[in-house]
Amino acid sequence: MFNASMLAPPRVHHDGSELYVSTMVPKIGDEVTLSIRVDHSLAVDEVFVRVIFDGDPHFIRAELQSESDNETWWSAMITQTNHRVNYRFALQSADRTYWFNGLGLHDRDVSDAHDFLLTTYSVPAWVDDAIFYQIFPDRFARSIDHVATSSPEWAIPARWETPVAAETPAGVKQWYGGSLWGIAEHIDYLADLGVNALYLTPFFPANSNHRYDASSFDTVDPFLGGDEALRSLIETAHQAGIRVIGDLTLNHSGNEHPWFVEAQIQPDSPKSDFYLFTSADRQSYVSFADVPSLPKFDHRSGALQKKLYNGPDSVISRYISDFDLDGWRIDVAQAAGRYRETDLSREIAQKTRRTMAEFGTDRLLLAEHQFDASVDLQGDGWHGTMAYAGFTKPIWGWLGKNIERDQWGAPLPSPRLNGTQLAEMMTEFSSLIPWKNLLANMNLLDSHDSSRFRSVSGDFQPLGIALLLTLPGMPMIFSGDEIGIDGLGMEASRKPFLWNEAEWDHDIYDLYRTLIRLRHTHSALRSGGLRWFSTGDDYVIFERANREETLLIEVSRASHDPLVSSVNGSSLLEGADLTAGKLMPELSCGFNMWKVE
Amino acid sequence: MFNASMLAPPRVHHDGSELYVSTMVPKIGDEVTLSIRVDHSLAVDEVFVRVIFDGDPHFIRAELQSESDNETWWSAMITQTNHRVNYRFALQSADRTYWFNGLGLHDRDVSDAHDFLLTTYSVPAWVDDAIFYQIFPDRFARSIDHVATSSPEWAIPARWETPVAAETPAGVKQWYGGSLWGIAEHIDYLADLGVNALYLTPFFPANSNHRYDASSFDTVDPFLGGDEALRSLIETAHQAGIRVIGDLTLNHSGNEHPWFVEAQIQPDSPKSDFYLFTSADRQSYVSFADVPSLPKFDHRSGALQKKLYNGPDSVISRYISDFDLDGWRIDVAQAAGRYRETDLSREIAQKTRRTMAEFGTDRLLLAEHQFDASVDLQGDGWHGTMAYAGFTKPIWGWLGKNIERDQWGAPLPSPRLNGTQLAEMMTEFSSLIPWKNLLANMNLLDSHDSSRFRSVSGDFQPLGIALLLTLPGMPMIFSGDEIGIDGLGMEASRKPFLWNEAEWDHDIYDLYRTLIRLRHTHSALRSGGLRWFSTGDDYVIFERANREETLLIEVSRASHDPLVSSVNGSSLLEGADLTAGKLMPELSCGFNMWKVE
Repeated sequence: MFNASMLAPPRVHHDGSELYVSTMVPKIGDEVTLSIRVDHSLAVDEVFVRVIFDGDPHFIRAELQSESDNETWWSAMITQTNHRVNYRFALQSADRTYWFNGLGLHDRDVSDAHDFLLTTYSVPAWVDDAIFYQIFPDRFARSIDHVATSSPEWAIPARWETPVAAETPAGVKQWYGGSLWGIAEHIDYLADLGVNALYLTPFFPANSNHRYDASSFDTVDPFLGGDEALRSLIETAHQAGIRVIGDLTLNHSGNEHPWFVEAQIQPDSPKSDFYLFTSADRQSYVSFADVPSLPKFDHRSGALQKKLYNGPDSVISRYISDFDLDGWRIDVAQAAGRYRETDLSREIAQKTRRTMAEFGTDRLLLAEHQFDASVDLQGDGWHGTMAYAGFTKPIWGWLGKNIERDQWGAPLPSPRLNGTQLAEMMTEFSSLIPWKNLLANMNLLDSHDSSRFRSVSGDFQPLGIALLLTLPGMPMIFSGDEIGIDGLGMEASRKPFLWNEAEWDHDIYDLYRTLIRLRHTHSALRSGGLRWFSTGDDYVIFERANREETLLIEVSRASHDPLVSSVNGSSLLEGADLTAGKLMPELSCGFNMWKVE
Repeated sequence: MFNASMLAPPRVHHDGSELYVSTMVPKIGDEVTLSIRVDHSLAVDEVFVRVIFDGDPHFIRAELQSESDNETWWSAMITQTNHRVNYRFALQSADRTYWFNGLGLHDRDVSDAHDFLLTTYSVPAWVDDAIFYQIFPDRFARSIDHVATSSPEWAIPARWETPVAAETPAGVKQWYGGSLWGIAEHIDYLADLGVNALYLTPFFPANSNHRYDASSFDTVDPFLGGDEALRSLIETAHQAGIRVIGDLTLNHSGNEHPWFVEAQIQPDSPKSDFYLFTSADRQSYVSFADVPSLPKFDHRSGALQKKLYNGPDSVISRYISDFDLDGWRIDVAQAAGRYRETDLSREIAQKTRRTMAEFGTDRLLLAEHQFDASVDLQGDGWHGTMAYAGFTKPIWGWLGKNIERDQWGAPLPSPRLNGTQLAEMMTEFSSLIPWKNLLANMNLLDSHDSSRFRSVSGDFQPLGIALLLTLPGMPMIFSGDEIGIDGLGMEASRKPFLWNEAEWDHDIYDLYRTLIRLRHTHSALRSGGLRWFSTGDDYVIFERANREETLLIEVSRASHDPLVSSVNGSSLLEGADLTAGKLMPELSCGFNMWKVE
């Protein structure tokens, strides 16, 4: 009835991971060995790396490195001539030339657009191991030790049990009174869950619960506990092995920020050029998404740069030096510094990074980028971005059920994908950035800026969680996802955390803990290369492999034609093992992960 | 016996040409209308342009513009917010979303890598109409009026009939004594052929016949006739309506250039930082392709920039102001300014362009780039490049017969393509650059840097000529191609022109003249959009269309399954007309062009 074909790896593979690249962060002049594996069926007898040095292509002949029954490994040594080197492979058989680049195998010449990329730029060493947890400070936990005695002027105080308002302005004014003290008091919970990095949405004073409309960068919002609470939280977190990054908007401030107030009324102020005024009376100005409360910065001002990110007196620098913050997430990074004829985006990223580099190489600089970030992610600026385009959207496309409209501003239905298209999309996006920056991307199923994935995916939720914890990139869990909090729409997703365990979805919680533990104990999930073995409408099967181990993962949303396994593998989860030559166990709607013997 | 399918256009089309874009060179703030045509079979009922403004995507709803029996035209008005705007289209049917970008139609979300590009940067107005003729000055014509009385010191004088030496150094030392006077005396020949632009390889003094090892930029080589001859040539050419561009290497000079001699022996000279010395005694230095006679420039020197291309005292500027040169071709542009941690390529292109802009907008700045030039061709630097990668190589791949090895440095056989792959390659390369820069690309079948296309293609030569004169971009004819000169290998291709018409291939000559005339009289061939209608192993059928006319072109290398024409068309060449509903005439090995009624 079914047509059972053999599970087989792609005929050629290389992906820039440490299994195929001898040095992930070479210096200029360093020699780097690049390896590629080629199936015997391709009958290749010569392999070259084509690499651009100083603008010109060079062909480096690869040597046969090792051979198995099925495949040959070839390797070639290149010199890292420039900060950014792009390369692809030429494979020669008796009668034809193949090219292999980040998109895969081609039987005609191709452009350089999807070449592999190797740069001299590093990412913090800890990103390989990072599992992030995002907290929207107002909604995670009130403090027991530091009870709030008043509420902000802008606030509509809410009880912890009050339903979140779906509409603005009520949605952004509701104040649940979570604080940084509250988070610090629950570090044990995070450590027990297994996450080791915390991403806090803004902690600056503002006029909304999301605080992206900062009215000061000088202190931590007193209603979140002030400087003292942030210092305590970071100390407590560090003691538990958990890093903490903050959230800063370089695109705009709030309109009540004193810089803006001063610039607007004092045209001779040193801050008068911090914003983009468009009328002589300074009543008109450029603002984010045309929201008047969010005036856009003009980064041509060197004084503004110094205040925000350039040098030791900047916001970026001070919170690292004073609080030991482990990094920053930069809000709407794709827009910061871009306006009409001006594009200072790269300069902003580079200067911010240079400022942070004063504190060593382990402070993370992450950009929010809800769209194709590849142009901005070439390694010399942001270490990584939030991977909405290359991760979240393909997964929603394959596993989304209950959403009508795209969440990211498109006036179109949410995309519908099959499993093959999921893999194609992920491959296309990853083909445009260096591998190490892919690993420094923050993968997410949802955030405070989207519906909850639980509501989007229904009974497919576990499949998304499996992809989150097994694909390359830093998994990020939006606080509450792990206990089954739902919500359709951005505001609805910002529900307060539930501290009564009776209200949890314990299956989901256990699944997160199990998969987090597996990621921590299996290095191939963290730094291994990625090969898509087989995909269909309803399933994807892929491999994560490094020098230590090879794991095979299947995620299936429905029954599909069975495949015959080509390997033996023992399941790392509940479920059947793999036996070479036998049918793979049917998963229907489910997933499994095997350690290949 | 054959399966006759209907010739049909692609279901969706837009290509950045004037048929689809209301303003080719918008200023920032201008409104631009973008149009797209969609076949009814796709059942699309909503269309949006997705465009990036200031880093953020915006969706602009398209309105129904017009409708025919088969298709609907939609159009949307965008504002040119930035110098460089990228966009693609979203097409919504009842049950799915399609995306359309420079690669074509997709049923899943895509990256921005192949978005259409619209910039504020212009190209000279005359590039649309240009048909170039390349002359290697030593090999086109000796002068009758200015007979040479001596030969250069480096030269091995040759008689006009002497066979060219295939090997170096003899190959580059042979001196046939062609001169700029000789070219001026044959302007009538060029005007009669129908070309209207002349590309001269270098005319500076040097120590080889190719003169890429310049020993001075101060004067024209006296052995070519000196300054007087260049002035006379340009005046004569301009009177005949023919523009003239020169050839300058910004990557390196010759090692006998006084700058290099001075820099090498005087470390305190103002020219000491013009080159990249790698040893304290200045005996070691970086050179082009490791050839010691070609020391590479160090563009970090502002003084060097001023001498070469930055400002009114530069070589770039002086030959325009003093001789009325119409532009420059920049040799090995992909390498100039690129060395280890330094990449000044874009700065060189921008400064050179700014220097030339002092003389108005009609001086052409063309880069030699034998590889993927897209990263360097975004409109603010070079106007165009020699289109080896996106034009020459695909045509050689489809029509090449007699070549063993790739001509562009790859240690691989020359690629073999079918007609479908030809179209795919051209589409991929053109998807990475703005349309107007595609039109400013110099298309070529061969040059002084390759074998002659005649030798490469054998009896397919006419097919290549047909593609050269009908595809978008400026056709360039390497002197002698039009009379049937052959040659395998770079040196062999530099044979002296044959002035005895009895030695010509008159069929080829007549074909060039016919197709040049057609290009001059049919504006769709010059500025029209490009749609690939149907392609197979052995044929390609494509349309060039603007507001004035629609032309259909078939180029076929062998018999193929017949197609039923969907249109009526009258042949612009010898051959049968097209009748809707009837089989298209069989071309076997041949081509035809029809004006669609």
